Amino acid sequence: MTPAADRIAADWIAADWGTSNLRAWAISDAGAVLAQADSDRGMGRLTPADYEPALLELIGGWLAPACTTPVLVCGMAGARQGWTEAAYRPVPCPPLGLPLTAAPTADPRLVVSIVPGLSQVRPSADVMRGEETQIAGALARHPGFDGVVCLPGTHSKWAEVSAGEVVSFRSFMTGELFDLLATQSVLRHGLAGDGWNDDAFDGAVAEAMARPEALAARLFTLRAEGLLAGLSPDRARARLSGLLIGAELAAARPWWLGRDVLLVGAGPLAALYARALAPLGVTPRTLPAEGAALAGLAQARALSKGPR
Amino acid sequence: MTPAADRIAADWIAADWGTSNLRAWAISDAGAVLAQADSDRGMGRLTPADYEPALLELIGGWLAPACTTPVLVCGMAGARQGWTEAAYRPVPCPPLGLPLTAAPTADPRLVVSIVPGLSQVRPSADVMRGEETQIAGALARHPGFDGVVCLPGTHSKWAEVSAGEVVSFRSFMTGELFDLLATQSVLRHGLAGDGWNDDAFDGAVAEAMARPEALAARLFTLRAEGLLAGLSPDRARARLSGLLIGAELAAARPWWLGRDVLLVGAGPLAALYARALAPLGVTPRTLPAEGAALAGLAQARALSKGPR
Repeated sequence: MTPAADRIAADWIAADWGTSNLRAWAISDAGAVLAQADSDRGMGRLTPADYEPALLELIGGWLAPACTTPVLVCGMAGARQGWTEAAYRPVPCPPLGLPLTAAPTADPRLVVSIVPGLSQVRPSADVMRGEETQIAGALARHPGFDGVVCLPGTHSKWAEVSAGEVVSFRSFMTGELFDLLATQSVLRHGLAGDGWNDDAFDGAVAEAMARPEALAARLFTLRAEGLLAGLSPDRARARLSGLLIGAELAAARPWWLGRDVLLVGAGPLAALYARALAPLGVTPRTLPAEGAALAGLAQARALSKGPR
Repeated sequence: MTPAADRIAADWIAADWGTSNLRAWAISDAGAVLAQADSDRGMGRLTPADYEPALLELIGGWLAPACTTPVLVCGMAGARQGWTEAAYRPVPCPPLGLPLTAAPTADPRLVVSIVPGLSQVRPSADVMRGEETQIAGALARHPGFDGVVCLPGTHSKWAEVSAGEVVSFRSFMTGELFDLLATQSVLRHGLAGDGWNDDAFDGAVAEAMARPEALAARLFTLRAEGLLAGLSPDRARARLSGLLIGAELAAARPWWLGRDVLLVGAGPLAALYARALAPLGVTPRTLPAEGAALAGLAQARALSKGPR
């Protein structure tokens, strides 16, 4: 709605709509990114009726008055508690596929399509929404990749990819556990600030991998060491992160041991996973999550034009 | 302050002052419980200046006008963020010992003594406050007990007791993890109500003990099974509890394997630990936490009269 935005003529719009944030890109005919916009109106704070206004507020300036602009959406907007539910596709299957789910809209300038997530029944029940699009984007950037895609986050995912399909995957609540423990638990007293200590992180990863079953006890030592030994907040924060990531890596051993790993994630967290994997002899290729999501949404756009 | 309370002449007063609650007992010369009172004014919501008024509100009616009544306090009131800090005593040592710490009071009818907690530096940093009094009470009820005392709770404790001393102990954040995950995490969507299912609990304990390192992944399956397979809130709640208690038992194996176990705890939670231990061939003796705390405070009272 700024004058600059008014001059944009998007061929289509890509949107990654997560629990906490919405990020959108205006894309040209030729596939170039014309503009990008962010909002904190994530799925977690919206009712179904809020989605269209939240989207228009962010990207209204990219819409030509007399045209219909397609919007491709991935992420939690497709959850049961989201805009409209986009049914899961069961693995094994390619990361993206039809049908896309149309979201109800009143503004004639919009046609919104939501990408389906993936589900798995065996060997363990699991779901993803949003990561499937990042995996598709990662495959577009690394054609023919055969191996494991690791996507760190609130609910980290490890996905086995072969012959262009997601064969199976596993989620870990690592990121959510870190946030809850760091901000809501008794450990919060010893974690003030945003400090960090690499040595403490490395040591905690090694400890957790050696005895991953002791997690609930090791967590309490952070409190005790703070009281008895003056454990600094920087070291405590890094140890908490290392204990949780180390426990994840111990459980995910079959996913990374001797495998080709592609790490898709945002800067600091992805860097921690790479740091934790290095002593295990794993040197993953890395890809920023944002680029992967955008490349995946471009694939969804191509799919949406195809067989219809 | 009711007429009934006015007629009580307590020789001394016992108080278990935890993070969430305060429980007090009026005790006669002969050691009989004359009255009991409870308050939700736990340490978590009090500043140091709030403690004396909170105590007087609860037990003022038990105080004779012209006398000084000793009050023996155990629990988090002795923490650094509590009424006044009662320094930890390092293990190995008897569960109770001097010095007690005098809390500052203005009312001449009160003399308040706080029981010290226990600390451990090796093999892992650890602390307890309140459980040491329950352990002392358990030893009073089971003289000569040699073995392991298990105290389930927000921060469950396993303590090795030999020749009347606490030799070492280990804390697990099991109870706090359950509360955070059940009420604050993505799992809360699938855990509505207070329902329960014993089979789901038993299965989850066995799963967690078989592969304790997979905890963060198994936790997420509760969400996925809710979405994909209609996992009921009753089963989900019992599975969450079983996964966490099972992981604790896996890590605590050296504490219970082939050992004489004494379980000190409140009803339903202690019953779950007993249920989880049964298939492992462990049949603990059990003792209610409240009785153990009161018996321990009576020991602290005797100590306070002794060597001074």
